Amino acid sequence: MTILGHHYIGGRRSACTSNSPLFSLDAVTGERHAVSFFEASSAEVLAAARAAHDAFPAYRTMTPAKRAAFLEAIADEIDALDASFIAEASRETALPAARLEVERKRTCGQLRLFAATVRRGDFHGARIDRGQPARKPLARPDLRQYRIGVGPVSVFGASNFPIAFSVAGGDTASALAAGCSVVVKAHPGHLVTSEYVADAIERAIAKTGMPAGTFNMIYGTAAAGAALVQAPEIRAVGFTGSLAGGRALFDLAQARPEPIPVFAEMSSVNPVFVMPSVLTERGAQIARELAASVTTGCGQLCTNPGLVLGVRSSEFDAFVSDLREAFEQALPQAMLGAGIRDNFRRGLARLREEEGVEVLVAVELDGRFGGHLLKADRRALFEGAGLEEEVFGPSTIVVELDSEADFHAFARTMRGQLTATVLASETDMKRNASLIALLEEKVGRLLFNGYPTGVEVSDAIVHGGPYPATTDARGTSVGSVAVERFLRPVCYQGYPDANLPLALQDANPLNLIRLIDGVPTRATVCAAQTAEVTL
Amino acid sequence: MTILGHHYIGGRRSACTSNSPLFSLDAVTGERHAVSFFEASSAEVLAAARAAHDAFPAYRTMTPAKRAAFLEAIADEIDALDASFIAEASRETALPAARLEVERKRTCGQLRLFAATVRRGDFHGARIDRGQPARKPLARPDLRQYRIGVGPVSVFGASNFPIAFSVAGGDTASALAAGCSVVVKAHPGHLVTSEYVADAIERAIAKTGMPAGTFNMIYGTAAAGAALVQAPEIRAVGFTGSLAGGRALFDLAQARPEPIPVFAEMSSVNPVFVMPSVLTERGAQIARELAASVTTGCGQLCTNPGLVLGVRSSEFDAFVSDLREAFEQALPQAMLGAGIRDNFRRGLARLREEEGVEVLVAVELDGRFGGHLLKADRRALFEGAGLEEEVFGPSTIVVELDSEADFHAFARTMRGQLTATVLASETDMKRNASLIALLEEKVGRLLFNGYPTGVEVSDAIVHGGPYPATTDARGTSVGSVAVERFLRPVCYQGYPDANLPLALQDANPLNLIRLIDGVPTRATVCAAQTAEVTL
Repeated sequence: MTILGHHYIGGRRSACTSNSPLFSLDAVTGERHAVSFFEASSAEVLAAARAAHDAFPAYRTMTPAKRAAFLEAIADEIDALDASFIAEASRETALPAARLEVERKRTCGQLRLFAATVRRGDFHGARIDRGQPARKPLARPDLRQYRIGVGPVSVFGASNFPIAFSVAGGDTASALAAGCSVVVKAHPGHLVTSEYVADAIERAIAKTGMPAGTFNMIYGTAAAGAALVQAPEIRAVGFTGSLAGGRALFDLAQARPEPIPVFAEMSSVNPVFVMPSVLTERGAQIARELAASVTTGCGQLCTNPGLVLGVRSSEFDAFVSDLREAFEQALPQAMLGAGIRDNFRRGLARLREEEGVEVLVAVELDGRFGGHLLKADRRALFEGAGLEEEVFGPSTIVVELDSEADFHAFARTMRGQLTATVLASETDMKRNASLIALLEEKVGRLLFNGYPTGVEVSDAIVHGGPYPATTDARGTSVGSVAVERFLRPVCYQGYPDANLPLALQDANPLNLIRLIDGVPTRATVCAAQTAEVTL
Repeated sequence: MTILGHHYIGGRRSACTSNSPLFSLDAVTGERHAVSFFEASSAEVLAAARAAHDAFPAYRTMTPAKRAAFLEAIADEIDALDASFIAEASRETALPAARLEVERKRTCGQLRLFAATVRRGDFHGARIDRGQPARKPLARPDLRQYRIGVGPVSVFGASNFPIAFSVAGGDTASALAAGCSVVVKAHPGHLVTSEYVADAIERAIAKTGMPAGTFNMIYGTAAAGAALVQAPEIRAVGFTGSLAGGRALFDLAQARPEPIPVFAEMSSVNPVFVMPSVLTERGAQIARELAASVTTGCGQLCTNPGLVLGVRSSEFDAFVSDLREAFEQALPQAMLGAGIRDNFRRGLARLREEEGVEVLVAVELDGRFGGHLLKADRRALFEGAGLEEEVFGPSTIVVELDSEADFHAFARTMRGQLTATVLASETDMKRNASLIALLEEKVGRLLFNGYPTGVEVSDAIVHGGPYPATTDARGTSVGSVAVERFLRPVCYQGYPDANLPLALQDANPLNLIRLIDGVPTRATVCAAQTAEVTL
């Protein structure tokens, strides 16, 4: 396809300014792609927000069937992209083609999951309290509630998932599922990839008859991103990236005359608690599996296990020695780009300076990074060596503790995290119910005898957690619950049936489960029974 | 009962500082109650937050049955308060005893609704994706999600509902229902009333065996409130009050090292759109009903209809004349206190200065306020006379427009509101579907041929709306959905059944409807079918 480097605004391409263009770089060589990309002017940022605003009324009132068909059409278009798409994405990110093909499948599966969610319709949260005209001393009015999209959403994609957490990634898919129009700020790290996907979305819009402006995309740097978050028409923000970047956008959004919710997924070290019993049984296996989890994708995953906690013992020494061996064997890979690479080096340098931290393995070969294993003592963990500050790359810190009591002590002071993993026997788990309870208050996802990388996209998944994992622990950016971030409840009092949305009409034309007078049922309103039919 | 004026911290009473005490005033005479109330020191504010934090782990893991019984016990204790409670509340707020008795019933009904919500258990949002060990290329892990309380919640009660939106009001009840411990900052306008209710809650805690510190309350002014919102243990805020007060707390909360969600219900003028057809049919009746809605409770209601829009005609002139008559007849009442009274006078004075605004009725008698009716022209509405700035008291502005098209024009530029009301025929409604769609994007509750005051407490109600009605349109502060503000999702991956919370165990011991592999069902996990049993 032809790459233009122009913005997508209201179904048209726009390129008003050409000062300080952006370039698509080869992640390994730094070589520029032939086409330069335009930096959005502030007028273009506002125009994109306005286009999303103008499309919102028509888009949000599309029937669920049409909205689902649109999401599926986007998936079909991405599925149909030819080999040049994967080749360009690989050039821009240094991610191998095989990994990108898996990521494409994940992205399309995600879009189809949201289509199924829209068809199921439970996200509407339909509730009906029938009027009681005869109630004393006051009649009860007829009240009906459902949830609608909050309005145009701005999406900031991640560098490390150029397909699944980017232009048509989880934030965009969930916003579109919620009935929100979208303005994406394309990640500067994969501009050509972004244009491929934006074109795919535009084709899906044309094929399924969605309003122009349902989807918009601008190219730009931090200034354009800041302007987008401040545009009055934008009603919510989805972001995946660094703590500094996420917090900056969050602060801008909260300082607006009308503040808006920001769901920024930012920073997590995903601690792994290794119980003594499992080291005896399968320490060598765990060392291999952990090394694979840490170094997969060159460690550039939000769920990378960056902190591994064990208890001093001869088994622990053997485990560290096994880890060392496994980390030395990991294949060096190129990172996503120069910025990520520099940050990784800076993070490692910081840790190296900390008292009580030593570097056991650090493989770097021609700018490619293999396993990086650090070891820290108890004091470094508890006395402010910053072991919970994310170092984004193929590294982890194994910490030698005095006893299992230290697991509890750490869990009590631990920051918010995306995940916490316990490697243990079932007997350990019974003994450690209080540890699990502590972890539940700190993280979005708790794993038993697994590894946090490889986030399933499903109905039950949570990819979120208390600050600084995200800016709002009440959201998830993966899985069908992600749609709830972009919804708000609306109530109709005493409304004529014909003016009610389909979700709330007497006849229940969408065949939803609705809470009628406190009872969940698919019944029509006239036939509503107080007794629930067995589920 | 004996009033002490001491704070409630972790099940004990505390009174460390006695500088600048607070006093309970007679709302009419300004006379002081004999007991002085202590202003919480910053150490006491932190101690209260810490007590809530310490109680949280035990409280949040109480079974739903126990949590529901606790909420019902609070209701029983408030029901059982003797006549001195209502007498004190009436002294502090000038609200008539009959109104306060209704409010007490509402408060207890609200607590019992949340008990029913906890028992029903749908707030858990339980979801299970069963593992697929044989899936290719990768096995799918077993994933289970439910929602837990976010942590300790600080509650700021409203002056105008000293029972229903205060110490044991909707915010406290919904936070406790969510499994969150609570720190209330008592409203300075009804200190004695607050102590009665706090004592009732303490008795319920003792009777049902809840942890000390599940509920805490401090007395203080703005500084104590600011310190409470900034206390690190506090995880969310519920507030009802002014735009300035709500925004100030919101800003503090967002500037924290770890920002927290703030649900502040603040400001709304609740526009009423009067279609020409209804003036012909029942203009005089509407005038009487509107006057009653505006002046009830001396107009001190968040849902007070502060803006009434009609179209120029002889029927409209007759309607304004009927309104004038009805407003003149409203019984003058004392306001909640000197602050509210001064603000009301300031708000009226501001409007009087605006071009295109005239005062038709302004009844004030010995410091008691009757109906206040203002009339504005089209220009004042559209050209920045500030008609959307809430004037809290028994006043409304009737606006004369040129045509029904002006309804649409106003709906397009209108600020966020708690409610919007259309008085119309069903034929008007069919013609005005696009107006309804515009209003849906701006408000939390849409009424047809009703009046916005008198908010039902139920499953389907919404008391919320886009800024500045609230700081977060995704919440409601009335009705059972209010519990969702204080919940966040947590996911268990591959966990042993014994370590799962009851809501997610295979056997479904809470008999919840759970989404299993995308299908809502009450089935146990082993017996889960892909086909849903009919609801």
